[in-house]
Amino acid sequence: MAKDNLTAVLYGVEDLRLEQRPIPTPKDDEVLLDMDSVGICGSDVHYLVKGRCGDFVVQKPMVIGHEASGVVSKVGANVKHLKAGDRVAIEPGYGCRVCDFCKAGRYNLCEEMIFCATPPYDGNLTRYYTHPADFCYKLPPHVTMEEGALLEPLSVGVHACRRAGVGLGSQVLILGAGPIGLVTLITAKSMGAGKIVVTDLLQNRLDVAKELGADGTLVVEVGANEQEVVKKVHDLFDGAPDKTIDCSGAEATSRLSILATRSGGCAVLVGMGASEVKLPLANALAREVDIRGVFRYCNDYPAALSLVASGKIDVKRLITHHFNIEETSEAFNTSRHGLGGAIKVMIHVQPKDKNNAK
Amino acid sequence: MAKDNLTAVLYGVEDLRLEQRPIPTPKDDEVLLDMDSVGICGSDVHYLVKGRCGDFVVQKPMVIGHEASGVVSKVGANVKHLKAGDRVAIEPGYGCRVCDFCKAGRYNLCEEMIFCATPPYDGNLTRYYTHPADFCYKLPPHVTMEEGALLEPLSVGVHACRRAGVGLGSQVLILGAGPIGLVTLITAKSMGAGKIVVTDLLQNRLDVAKELGADGTLVVEVGANEQEVVKKVHDLFDGAPDKTIDCSGAEATSRLSILATRSGGCAVLVGMGASEVKLPLANALAREVDIRGVFRYCNDYPAALSLVASGKIDVKRLITHHFNIEETSEAFNTSRHGLGGAIKVMIHVQPKDKNNAK
Amino acid sequence: MAKDNLTAVLYGVEDLRLEQRPIPTPKDDEVLLDMDSVGICGSDVHYLVKGRCGDFVVQKPMVIGHEASGVVSKVGANVKHLKAGDRVAIEPGYGCRVCDFCKAGRYNLCEEMIFCATPPYDGNLTRYYTHPADFCYKLPPHVTMEEGALLEPLSVGVHACRRAGVGLGSQVLILGAGPIGLVTLITAKSMGAGKIVVTDLLQNRLDVAKELGADGTLVVEVGANEQEVVKKVHDLFDGAPDKTIDCSGAEATSRLSILATRSGGCAVLVGMGASEVKLPLANALAREVDIRGVFRYCNDYPAALSLVASGKIDVKRLITHHFNIEETSEAFNTSRHGLGGAIKVMIHVQPKDKNNAK
Amino acid sequence: MAKDNLTAVLYGVEDLRLEQRPIPTPKDDEVLLDMDSVGICGSDVHYLVKGRCGDFVVQKPMVIGHEASGVVSKVGANVKHLKAGDRVAIEPGYGCRVCDFCKAGRYNLCEEMIFCATPPYDGNLTRYYTHPADFCYKLPPHVTMEEGALLEPLSVGVHACRRAGVGLGSQVLILGAGPIGLVTLITAKSMGAGKIVVTDLLQNRLDVAKELGADGTLVVEVGANEQEVVKKVHDLFDGAPDKTIDCSGAEATSRLSILATRSGGCAVLVGMGASEVKLPLANALAREVDIRGVFRYCNDYPAALSLVASGKIDVKRLITHHFNIEETSEAFNTSRHGLGGAIKVMIHVQPKDKNNAK
Repeated sequence: MAKDNLTAVLYGVEDLRLEQRPIPTPKDDEVLLDMDSVGICGSDVHYLVKGRCGDFVVQKPMVIGHEASGVVSKVGANVKHLKAGDRVAIEPGYGCRVCDFCKAGRYNLCEEMIFCATPPYDGNLTRYYTHPADFCYKLPPHVTMEEGALLEPLSVGVHACRRAGVGLGSQVLILGAGPIGLVTLITAKSMGAGKIVVTDLLQNRLDVAKELGADGTLVVEVGANEQEVVKKVHDLFDGAPDKTIDCSGAEATSRLSILATRSGGCAVLVGMGASEVKLPLANALAREVDIRGVFRYCNDYPAALSLVASGKIDVKRLITHHFNIEETSEAFNTSRHGLGGAIKVMIHVQPKDKNNAK
Repeated sequence: MAKDNLTAVLYGVEDLRLEQRPIPTPKDDEVLLDMDSVGICGSDVHYLVKGRCGDFVVQKPMVIGHEASGVVSKVGANVKHLKAGDRVAIEPGYGCRVCDFCKAGRYNLCEEMIFCATPPYDGNLTRYYTHPADFCYKLPPHVTMEEGALLEPLSVGVHACRRAGVGLGSQVLILGAGPIGLVTLITAKSMGAGKIVVTDLLQNRLDVAKELGADGTLVVEVGANEQEVVKKVHDLFDGAPDKTIDCSGAEATSRLSILATRSGGCAVLVGMGASEVKLPLANALAREVDIRGVFRYCNDYPAALSLVASGKIDVKRLITHHFNIEETSEAFNTSRHGLGGAIKVMIHVQPKDKNNAK
Repeated sequence: MAKDNLTAVLYGVEDLRLEQRPIPTPKDDEVLLDMDSVGICGSDVHYLVKGRCGDFVVQKPMVIGHEASGVVSKVGANVKHLKAGDRVAIEPGYGCRVCDFCKAGRYNLCEEMIFCATPPYDGNLTRYYTHPADFCYKLPPHVTMEEGALLEPLSVGVHACRRAGVGLGSQVLILGAGPIGLVTLITAKSMGAGKIVVTDLLQNRLDVAKELGADGTLVVEVGANEQEVVKKVHDLFDGAPDKTIDCSGAEATSRLSILATRSGGCAVLVGMGASEVKLPLANALAREVDIRGVFRYCNDYPAALSLVASGKIDVKRLITHHFNIEETSEAFNTSRHGLGGAIKVMIHVQPKDKNNAK
Repeated sequence: MAKDNLTAVLYGVEDLRLEQRPIPTPKDDEVLLDMDSVGICGSDVHYLVKGRCGDFVVQKPMVIGHEASGVVSKVGANVKHLKAGDRVAIEPGYGCRVCDFCKAGRYNLCEEMIFCATPPYDGNLTRYYTHPADFCYKLPPHVTMEEGALLEPLSVGVHACRRAGVGLGSQVLILGAGPIGLVTLITAKSMGAGKIVVTDLLQNRLDVAKELGADGTLVVEVGANEQEVVKKVHDLFDGAPDKTIDCSGAEATSRLSILATRSGGCAVLVGMGASEVKLPLANALAREVDIRGVFRYCNDYPAALSLVASGKIDVKRLITHHFNIEETSEAFNTSRHGLGGAIKVMIHVQPKDKNNAK
């Protein structure tokens, strides 16, 4: 068994292979992990289908996977807060620790960032994986390994809501009801948002949003008249939302983020789309609607974990499909085509529930 | 009936009388209100018992009451957002609107503040009362008039939590489980606090805190060893809280606010006690634990209303006793002596539930 | 003389007339002012030339002028901080004082804003004018009336720098060396910016920027290659600026604001141009470069006055031309065509220096 | 020469010795420095005289010195931004880089902080010294090595002013005109403070403050009546200061920080005095005057360097005495007794001006 380190390696477009890799040894500040659960993210699919995601291009074989949890099997010499047997969520990226961004607490902007499954760095859809111990968060017994893996997308929602300044009584518009829209919804609700309205192209996605606590939903069709959509949104809020969080990345939603938001409010754009977008900029400027991007997350894992551990939300609701690592190909197929109403597809490296409390 | 404007007037120490007063006429920016519910606050009791509260001294007869709701019966010429019949919560204080504080959005610090039942200004435990329309907040149908009155103490909790920067995952220590401690607990929980521990002298008050969602409670006896209390708190948090909110005002709790809080955290002191307090100041300074006061609230009513309207919390749980206005004397007696486990005593100017949805 | 209230009234496109108007009477919260100096702003010229500025359209005769100072001649009943003879700068806009924006300290976003020479409200290029006393700022004896008038554009610079978060050591890129670019330069320098680079189409405008303290300047030609401009900017900074403040409003400068700014930095757009702009949005989002607009100013006059009163800066350098009110037509001609290297054209309603210290 | 590593080692109270130490070798992320200038700080004197400073106690021989600059002579394998010959200012403390404080950008609160000449860690009053490269800041040619050493106290001033939120137009009261009071003055002025008043017990220290740009000064005698001092301060400001920065640490100045500050303002306490202090707490709380400590600095060196490099301020004015390393004993004597009006005493490890531009 110790010799088996089955690993999912992306060799190029449409070329994802399972192969054996050597088992790594943890450095002094690292832990060796027996990987447990790895979720499939849209970016993973992008790499598989297009060989790239934004400016990042796969140029050599790369282990896929970055939404993950595992069990500590060995700790490096300097590691104090973890020990073998600890179940952990893995924050997949870490900075250089010496640049201005890292020292100022914005390590997600570090130019030397090492991030799982972002070229040229390997991910962690594998049986054995080493990671800096300080980016591993110990899970309380009642939190499952799958929830640990879900902390990754959830942290994006946390970062987005924090960037937006969501707080008690906030009126929040969320554009897009995919996984990121849903975790943003969950997070905004947990922060005390007064009203949350979610839009999407598809009613069935909005049904899940409703189930997860959206106060209102709105189907917006492609090509819908912009001013009419704004009016419908304002009717649902009985005014304009303070915060709009675009989790879609389409030009239409980027525009709506500006147009629909209350003066002095904030449009946070999580979803990234085309590099060039036509925006109603004067509208944003004259009303001091701030426009803010979200790049992954930074110091958000603890809050995400706190949220899951509280039991107040059901983030597991996002997981629609389970596969084991040998079925990786099928798992990606389900995710990329949204088969069976797929929202989040989870790959189990170890037998499902093996490391969860009974 | 239109001639009956029974009003509770404090003439001096232990001299609270019910008497008839003329019915006022609203100015252009005001509304005339048929008062419905008025809660009794600790400061009301202070004025009755000592004739003063902090630097404010009763020097002439003053109408008591400031935690209130009512029904609009007439609107001034400039009032647009309210109409007769609207049920409203009344924010009891308003600034001069022209000083730097008012213009900068911190009207609670306005030196010309007019605040109900703070000398020399009259309160609103009366049948008919006029108030600036913009400080009246329309209640949705499903929010009761009593809840409307409770927005006042709840807004203190909101202001305290905002001053503390409570957010998702915050570890919050609340000192004191009286009405303000409890509304702070409710608010912190609604803002996504990860763990909340409440301390008090009395177990029965902590039982209510537990019921309202405290993750942990701790009875702290008068004269308890400071370092031991800190240790117990840290044990409950498995670390130190990020935020401590002192809702008691005793020297011991002011000190604990500093000593128990994590470096870089925040000690918010809502309760105000002696003017001179001995503090472990160097401990706060060397660990950059910020110390912040709370003076009433400012722009907090909308969030408080949003919170109550969400139905997520049961602020009504605070109301332990109901009286009608003719029983004002008995109501104050119940409140000041904490009879029957009194937390919040509510006085009904109109028949209970008359203005609530059936 | 008391009967002479010569006033500059814009009747329509290219139709600016001088005519007599009745002398107004101050309300209780107002002062009557003997107007002294009134600067000409780009928006004034827009109204003259096009009859509109953004969404604001001149639909009836409107007194022009809003960058102004005057001498108090009468005070309303409630006015305490001013008396006849006081020399004041006039903040030209004030909100409704009762909406959420006004109460939260963002009165510039008030939807009921009354702003001089913004339709339908009259400006103050006139001999006698009434204004709310709290929006009149008493000038110290050594500050001239012209400087008082200049507080208006200077406050835009203050608001822009505050919105950008300019502070000690900030690396600031300013796009455009017109009046707003120059006041932004002055302000950023006063706030401790470490390095400031200004760009413009014209070298002669950059010469003034240099004179006012720019550490570097760059002529950018229309149609210049975007990446090359970014590179030149980065070379001048020996890195990327933290803050970029676009005082031009062209699409090219809006784009440059994003592309040139350091990750995690801020692009503040003061100049407003076309309503639709094509932006390299993904670049901003992935690097968390925030985009913020500036609408006039809010609570910025005191800082602007403090800056002028400090004597550290020479804001008067902006004034290139002086006219008296009878020469209003010539003054506007000079301003609109930039005759004689015009930067800021000042109109004197009273004899020049009459109200300045000798 | 390579064998000579003369080093100032504190063996205990009043036992500071010069002795030879081995020359260290830089690790991969470190540089080896030829030390140039080392200033004497109050804490150095405390260690010499009392063997302790606050909770830090000298328990074994410790190299003294932490306000320092040097010249890079060797770089570790990973160091990219520095090379041999670079002149650098040395930020003397660095965190563990893995705890929550370090990752959130508040490394000064790291519990594993390694800080020069704070027990048990050695300082850098020595000829050869190794330090993490990212905490060495390259000096531009026109900045002297002495100014490089002065970045250390200057960074305290920067941190204090940032914690206070000093900005354009701020009214700043500084209590104490010692080295920290003076660097705070310099910094506040550079950030655009509108008026700065400095108090001290001694007129001659205030004379230096005046020289460095204080708008007003006030001698406050020991035991002066508190309310009278507040009144004098308010008279000097023509109101109350927004920010008070206590650079003294006496109980009287801590109290004055609260009492003198405007409602809604901020009292920043840099100087740390007795562990227990009697404060007029209710005054601070009811007026929402925030109380904030300052522990060293964090991400402040770049701004301090920018300030010195700008040439706008004369931080060198603080240096009143120069000694070479062999005269360390005399240097300490001068500093501890304030001989010859000593403000800042500088020790030269290399010949004075050897590494400065001619």
